[in-house]
Amino acid sequence: MSKLTFGAGIWHFATYVDRYATDGYGPPRDLIEMIDLAGQVRDLSVVDINFPWSADVSADAVETALKRNNLSVIGITPEIYNREFSRGAFTNPDAGVRRRANEVCNQAADLVRRFGASYVKLWPGQDGWDYPFQVDHRKLWRLSIDGIGELASQNPDLKFVIEYKPREPRVHMAFDSVARTLLGIEAMGLPNVGILLDFGHALFAGESPSDSAQLAIDHGRLFGMDVNDNLRAWDDDMVAGTVHPIELFEFFYTLRKNNWEGVWQLDQFPFRENGVEAADMAIDFLKHIDTALDRLDFEALQAAQDRQDALSAQKLARKALFGI
Amino acid sequence: MSKLTFGAGIWHFATYVDRYATDGYGPPRDLIEMIDLAGQVRDLSVVDINFPWSADVSADAVETALKRNNLSVIGITPEIYNREFSRGAFTNPDAGVRRRANEVCNQAADLVRRFGASYVKLWPGQDGWDYPFQVDHRKLWRLSIDGIGELASQNPDLKFVIEYKPREPRVHMAFDSVARTLLGIEAMGLPNVGILLDFGHALFAGESPSDSAQLAIDHGRLFGMDVNDNLRAWDDDMVAGTVHPIELFEFFYTLRKNNWEGVWQLDQFPFRENGVEAADMAIDFLKHIDTALDRLDFEALQAAQDRQDALSAQKLARKALFGI
Amino acid sequence: MSKLTFGAGIWHFATYVDRYATDGYGPPRDLIEMIDLAGQVRDLSVVDINFPWSADVSADAVETALKRNNLSVIGITPEIYNREFSRGAFTNPDAGVRRRANEVCNQAADLVRRFGASYVKLWPGQDGWDYPFQVDHRKLWRLSIDGIGELASQNPDLKFVIEYKPREPRVHMAFDSVARTLLGIEAMGLPNVGILLDFGHALFAGESPSDSAQLAIDHGRLFGMDVNDNLRAWDDDMVAGTVHPIELFEFFYTLRKNNWEGVWQLDQFPFRENGVEAADMAIDFLKHIDTALDRLDFEALQAAQDRQDALSAQKLARKALFGI
Amino acid sequence: MSKLTFGAGIWHFATYVDRYATDGYGPPRDLIEMIDLAGQVRDLSVVDINFPWSADVSADAVETALKRNNLSVIGITPEIYNREFSRGAFTNPDAGVRRRANEVCNQAADLVRRFGASYVKLWPGQDGWDYPFQVDHRKLWRLSIDGIGELASQNPDLKFVIEYKPREPRVHMAFDSVARTLLGIEAMGLPNVGILLDFGHALFAGESPSDSAQLAIDHGRLFGMDVNDNLRAWDDDMVAGTVHPIELFEFFYTLRKNNWEGVWQLDQFPFRENGVEAADMAIDFLKHIDTALDRLDFEALQAAQDRQDALSAQKLARKALFGI
Repeated sequence: MSKLTFGAGIWHFATYVDRYATDGYGPPRDLIEMIDLAGQVRDLSVVDINFPWSADVSADAVETALKRNNLSVIGITPEIYNREFSRGAFTNPDAGVRRRANEVCNQAADLVRRFGASYVKLWPGQDGWDYPFQVDHRKLWRLSIDGIGELASQNPDLKFVIEYKPREPRVHMAFDSVARTLLGIEAMGLPNVGILLDFGHALFAGESPSDSAQLAIDHGRLFGMDVNDNLRAWDDDMVAGTVHPIELFEFFYTLRKNNWEGVWQLDQFPFRENGVEAADMAIDFLKHIDTALDRLDFEALQAAQDRQDALSAQKLARKALFGI
Repeated sequence: MSKLTFGAGIWHFATYVDRYATDGYGPPRDLIEMIDLAGQVRDLSVVDINFPWSADVSADAVETALKRNNLSVIGITPEIYNREFSRGAFTNPDAGVRRRANEVCNQAADLVRRFGASYVKLWPGQDGWDYPFQVDHRKLWRLSIDGIGELASQNPDLKFVIEYKPREPRVHMAFDSVARTLLGIEAMGLPNVGILLDFGHALFAGESPSDSAQLAIDHGRLFGMDVNDNLRAWDDDMVAGTVHPIELFEFFYTLRKNNWEGVWQLDQFPFRENGVEAADMAIDFLKHIDTALDRLDFEALQAAQDRQDALSAQKLARKALFGI
Repeated sequence: MSKLTFGAGIWHFATYVDRYATDGYGPPRDLIEMIDLAGQVRDLSVVDINFPWSADVSADAVETALKRNNLSVIGITPEIYNREFSRGAFTNPDAGVRRRANEVCNQAADLVRRFGASYVKLWPGQDGWDYPFQVDHRKLWRLSIDGIGELASQNPDLKFVIEYKPREPRVHMAFDSVARTLLGIEAMGLPNVGILLDFGHALFAGESPSDSAQLAIDHGRLFGMDVNDNLRAWDDDMVAGTVHPIELFEFFYTLRKNNWEGVWQLDQFPFRENGVEAADMAIDFLKHIDTALDRLDFEALQAAQDRQDALSAQKLARKALFGI
Repeated sequence: MSKLTFGAGIWHFATYVDRYATDGYGPPRDLIEMIDLAGQVRDLSVVDINFPWSADVSADAVETALKRNNLSVIGITPEIYNREFSRGAFTNPDAGVRRRANEVCNQAADLVRRFGASYVKLWPGQDGWDYPFQVDHRKLWRLSIDGIGELASQNPDLKFVIEYKPREPRVHMAFDSVARTLLGIEAMGLPNVGILLDFGHALFAGESPSDSAQLAIDHGRLFGMDVNDNLRAWDDDMVAGTVHPIELFEFFYTLRKNNWEGVWQLDQFPFRENGVEAADMAIDFLKHIDTALDRLDFEALQAAQDRQDALSAQKLARKALFGI
């Protein structure tokens, strides 16, 4: 029996559109339906919820739906990447739109308080650039730092987490990597801004997710994480463990080694799959990883790593993960 | 004054959605509006039109709109990648859906006849796979070949062009590269199936677009082409010439060298830009390329290529393109 | 106890140089030393040997060394990628060098006969291009096909296998993918030319190695294979199973499903590791895969694939591979 | 007539080996020969020189050779990536080897003083990891920072520049990106450590080189730079301007806009080309860029960037670069 807490972004249970299937991969679902689906996942306890909601959804209704599904809220993700912010949220060239981004995020902060959640999650997917010569890079980065810094200063009682990603929908996102994001956070100089480390984004950024986690931890900024999988070249948001189980195992090894405690979250987009089944399947694998960590000889592994002895280290990991 | 014919996919003048900006990058536009925008581009003569259309758009209305904008139709692109076909068109596991794909494509064929267009364009973006172990690769490839082969056999009076791409929306598309597509076309063994070579897709596939064009030409299968630009790692559909002008120049050099005649088309997705301006800008650069080809010393270049002398060849190209 | 035959390229037991560590990653080893190291690998039966050898190594000495290590030869790999051929072997702009490539390959063919090996392995790593505009793509591809076709025609009693790779050392190799190579082989029209499919090269090419194997099998051209691992973006030649165990499992699943019988070879470059240990470690994982295939429910998997049901298929694979 | 100072790494004039062409792409050249070749480049004034030298080369001989070719030294690059350091220099698991790395770098520092050069250039290409689970990421990063910090503390009169790169020869380098390197430099907390920004490494790292330059400048750490080109997926070290002229132009635009003054250096590896010709060709293009910057309307461009108006910005750049 696992002592772990599992979570998921509520969008895991949505249907999706993209630039080709503009009519969607299935009929639209509203937030309440998504929560009810999340409730069907065997071991899910917490969710991250997008905001704002459609006019017919009230906070009370959300609360009721969460309660009947035994779910609590870990974070609120303001939608600072839809049409209004399609040319940027914190870095939009229009000061009025930047102001609007601040407002929406402050509303999200209020929801964090109301739901007793852990943080406002910022994913500035439209803040960046597409073309060579398009932006003044100093100015854009300055706006990124100032915009989030302002928000965090306005809400010193709350945590704000930045989820970096190399790109999409922008061709290049300003917060593109763990190091760049830490550099920005250090420039803000505030205690309540940290990183939400997405395993797949780290892979996509050419990072070793285990190294990314260690770096964020060593800066005291690993405030949250989520997992999924991809083919390293795009944010495919596939089911965790289906492509890169070994690096996923190394990622959780690093978390345990550092006594990092927090929710094991899913950020998957099952475009053509059943969302509940996709979540169950990922969680089953995460439990396997958890028991594999119990089996892993941490001392021998540390000794191998001290020698940078790749083969010995891999054999220890393999034994724990595959039983060979 | 250019003797070239320029074209564009009509979606160049649409607004777009993606999985984040689900409310779109702008208010929706209908086909007639798009045609009227296409008509504003200085040197555009032909368009490629998606099908089916919304209920309120008739073929007569389209014809009228085209006429008032002095546009003709080069191809019809059936939407075999929306919700109905989100698990595949020709390779859908459900035979009924495969039948539907055939129907839609046959309707597109009728429109090609009605508009006196050149081809039905097939872009089977949902035909492929996402996960390891998901598909029987022999079966999937067989269905790809049979589905298109059947269509081409049913319409021997028309041309069908396949536009390959490595991926998106599928994590892996069956028609992923120029060589794979030619292999499939050869297996069909029909004269009326060819390639629509997208410059950006070739870049994205790790190909040299010039080599892709030559290979398709040497198999007698280069039936069409379009251009755009990207960062080589995704199908960004940026404005042609803004990132990779030298390979774009080499691509058109290869076309001229082979006396390939056809429309110079655009396949751009100006998510955050003005569509008319983006088209004008691309066409201006294509004209520059055309005059640069006039300046290029083909004989000296052939001699350098016969020696595989990279620096001499590049100097000749550079002189023609940059004037240095 | 495994009924499998394991093999390795003899270079697995070499020391290496690269453009930075020009003094090598260890003291040079001669062929006899490499064979004696290969003999120390627990379950290795066959080797692929480079040619030519240094002046002090005779075929008799090689034979003696192989015998005392219970090794036989599966292939001979002529070194058509060293200084003499650094501007190409079959496609060198100098006809004299092309002639020399043919001679060296014919000498390799004689060694294949002498050692009772299965094939001459052709890896034309220098045949391709570096720069835009450098080559006449039609001519280069023609030379590729003609050069190998001539060789195969001169030796109808032997098999020739082409090992494709996207790039390195050339920025772009002519035989860059499974489909391109099959297209070239079909153009040669000879029964004795096939593919040596390197798992890592397929990954590096953006292919699904399982799909590549199926395609080569369906063309009757899968003459050999070898395995290793990498991060998908370069030919890292790491130990098999250390990064992508699931796709490796799918690859062998495809081979068994097709009743493909042949040697399970290693093509690894343990730059900083012990070569014998790296081979043992890989073979141990391949044995695990073999027993996992015994456990795998082929019928249920086929049914899942017929539905293109990714999650069910993955669960079956996972159960067999991880025991969960 | 250009007021620019052009430089090159002296290895630009070497012959190369790689893991396949182990006999090299040409006969070996000694340092004096390389200097004499550098002297043949039309506008080259300064060189960066590797160290240590072979036993028969003295500092006096080097000085004489430099003098007769009118060359001065900008930096000394200690070879902390050859066999001795193949498992790491600053991060080697063996403390004795780390000590040796420090010694070699201190010797390089002495040479910087003797030649009146600007900096010791550190390129820790072997410091990193290859396999998942191989290293303790905290420890490895700590060693990276401490090793370079120690060196810089020992030589407060000199500058040390770190040249980051994502990978090669290691599968993953510790100093992999501009942001990570700045993070490390900030952790060192010393004024005399900065970045040598390689245009191609930035491209390879998925960065926009212009953004990388701006970020390093804004941290007061852009101590040097060099240029070349590649296909974004590997450090091809091709001739500058042959593939990505627009991003190269943007890079120099950013330098000029910030009044960054320094040598325009080349870091090219002309494996199969004439080194002198490759340098001349690159410098000719850099001069074109310099005059294009003179033509560029900085004010209008700034205005376009303030609006993040990609098309207007690109048109201004295009006009200056292509004359259209």
